[in-house]
Amino acid sequence: SRSINLAVIPGDGIGQEVVAEGLKVLTAVLPQDVKLETKEYDFGARRYHATGETLTDADLEQLKQHDAILLGAIGDPSVPSGVLERGFLLKLRFAFDHHVNLRPSKLLPGVATPLAGNPQIDFVVVREGTEGPYTGNGGTIRQGTEHEVATEVSVNTAYGVERVVRYAFARAQARPRKKLTLVHKNNVLTFAGHLWTNIFNKVAEEYPEVTTEYIHVDAATIYLVTQPERFDVIVTDNLFGDIITDLAAAVSGGIGTAASGNINPSGEFPSMFEPVHGSAPDIAGQGKADPTATVLSVALLLRHLGFEAEATRVEDAVAADLAERGALPARSTSEIGDALCVRVAG
Amino acid sequence: SRSINLAVIPGDGIGQEVVAEGLKVLTAVLPQDVKLETKEYDFGARRYHATGETLTDADLEQLKQHDAILLGAIGDPSVPSGVLERGFLLKLRFAFDHHVNLRPSKLLPGVATPLAGNPQIDFVVVREGTEGPYTGNGGTIRQGTEHEVATEVSVNTAYGVERVVRYAFARAQARPRKKLTLVHKNNVLTFAGHLWTNIFNKVAEEYPEVTTEYIHVDAATIYLVTQPERFDVIVTDNLFGDIITDLAAAVSGGIGTAASGNINPSGEFPSMFEPVHGSAPDIAGQGKADPTATVLSVALLLRHLGFEAEATRVEDAVAADLAERGALPARSTSEIGDALCVRVAG
Ligand SMILES: CC(C)[C@H](C(=O)O)[C@@H](O)C(=O)O
Ligand SMILES: CC(C)[C@H](C(=O)O)[C@@H](O)C(=O)O
Repeated sequence: SRSINLAVIPGDGIGQEVVAEGLKVLTAVLPQDVKLETKEYDFGARRYHATGETLTDADLEQLKQHDAILLGAIGDPSVPSGVLERGFLLKLRFAFDHHVNLRPSKLLPGVATPLAGNPQIDFVVVREGTEGPYTGNGGTIRQGTEHEVATEVSVNTAYGVERVVRYAFARAQARPRKKLTLVHKNNVLTFAGHLWTNIFNKVAEEYPEVTTEYIHVDAATIYLVTQPERFDVIVTDNLFGDIITDLAAAVSGGIGTAASGNINPSGEFPSMFEPVHGSAPDIAGQGKADPTATVLSVALLLRHLGFEAEATRVEDAVAADLAERGALPARSTSEIGDALCVRVAG
Repeated sequence: SRSINLAVIPGDGIGQEVVAEGLKVLTAVLPQDVKLETKEYDFGARRYHATGETLTDADLEQLKQHDAILLGAIGDPSVPSGVLERGFLLKLRFAFDHHVNLRPSKLLPGVATPLAGNPQIDFVVVREGTEGPYTGNGGTIRQGTEHEVATEVSVNTAYGVERVVRYAFARAQARPRKKLTLVHKNNVLTFAGHLWTNIFNKVAEEYPEVTTEYIHVDAATIYLVTQPERFDVIVTDNLFGDIITDLAAAVSGGIGTAASGNINPSGEFPSMFEPVHGSAPDIAGQGKADPTATVLSVALLLRHLGFEAEATRVEDAVAADLAERGALPARSTSEIGDALCVRVAG
């Protein structure tokens, strides 16, 4: 009989509320014969203030035992910028080699977009998750003086780039349009840019059916607002991926519906699924947060664990719910979760 | 009697056409007593193919003699990516210490935006121009092998950050709304991020009337499409500035109207003014290019050289022309230039 042994990290702010709904929907959609075990972890601002810890080696050992991780949000204004991001979120992505950061963008019927017209938006960004300017390489000398110098080193390896580029080509090949866009800035960041471009072009030879294009990151932001239908699959570096996926979320219905997976495709470590939005402390605890992005992250989690039909049921439920929203009065976090549970069960 | 000794670099593709119109408008708007001398330089793809040169020390010596530089566009698909960008554009910005890259975004009446609703857009991005990931620091080992490692080093100095932050505060102070937003990614790029944030907060103390805020670059792209009216002056790093100013151009009427100044505020070296768009080889030589961005760059040039009234006349002419465009049949590059000449003269 099948089972899922899930690590649950509600985290800070609205993380608590949205994860509760994600779990409700997960429970509702799973067949009776699937045993769902969950263990909750208290990472985030509270634990940091109480113990000074963000993510210890012992924590990683425990998390490693799970099949997957569901995360709400980590971050609070009471913690200095960077402490939880580097000490928890990025530490986990690096420790578990989450080199594929998968971020789908789909403008669903009935969903408002800030863009005029009625754009067709349905693409997936494959963001590299373990290299680039995110490695923490760099440093500061003469800090606080007028002679301070601070560096950030973007580290890019053939090993790291090739595996994520291969993943992206495989995804593009599996989609009807079979198009893959490389986004970088190879005319300025020529060292990293040539590495990315050369590997992209080399792997492209193995995928003759996939149409490829290259776009500079600055131009990509233009196309995301003027021709979002142009994109099918995008592969890009860690930092460029961070930037364009927030923009992609904004144009395809807002950060309230943007899901993501931090994936280790080999399965050596558990993958982690989280909404793209943050902890939104200003609306935390008020039942105002939209759990949709978390529920869609649960769909990615289900698909990753092989529950394809259940993943699709969750996505269809969200699509149906969003399509009717315009006609409904505003609902609370748990009311939206309840409605989705009804839909996935029915 | 006053005079302007201008270096003119038409460059590649549509650069030739749009610069011609920029010069026409410049000539038309200048008072009779101002002597305009221009010298044309042949930088770009043609010179590179003929001589292998992009920008020599002798070239820099010559350019240094001018009061300012007007540039069309540099770049052609026949030249490998990076050669002209690093060898000409960035070399010039660094050699002439163009540390303020000024990029205004204003949605003018009658101009189409990809955004729904009727957003108010009127802000200026002050992009750092001589540091960050643009320095060319970094390198590659084991190139072309499966063990290749390529690095890009973002270099940030207190000296470089403070001067551009001061410039931005002075600009914000001079504007009615007096608001300045720092855009960075200080939760991940903590070394550079702390340097930027600390200097920003320190200088802020000298400008009690300026309202300040900090926004991560990823979130900034969301606000640029959902709440562009939020911004007044933005100060940011070289790469983030590159990315968000293309997006800003897209939402405020398109890259066809986006002007920029590469400014050396001390006047030690001539400043350079250029449209944000590139050489657009696909439409070059057909009279289809919109010279508006170049003409608005001429306005920035005029203001920089102290011709405030003339700068405003050029901007007003462009605003009036854009407001009437919807009602007119499509015009050629030179027809638009001619219309603007009539307006600035009248
Ligand atoms: C919170 C931060 C570390 C993170 C990132 O930059 O990757 C976030 O912006 C994201 O996109 O998941
Ligand atoms: C062409 C390129 C070097 C340049 C840059 O990245 O600065 C361009 O994109 C710009 O914004 O002026």
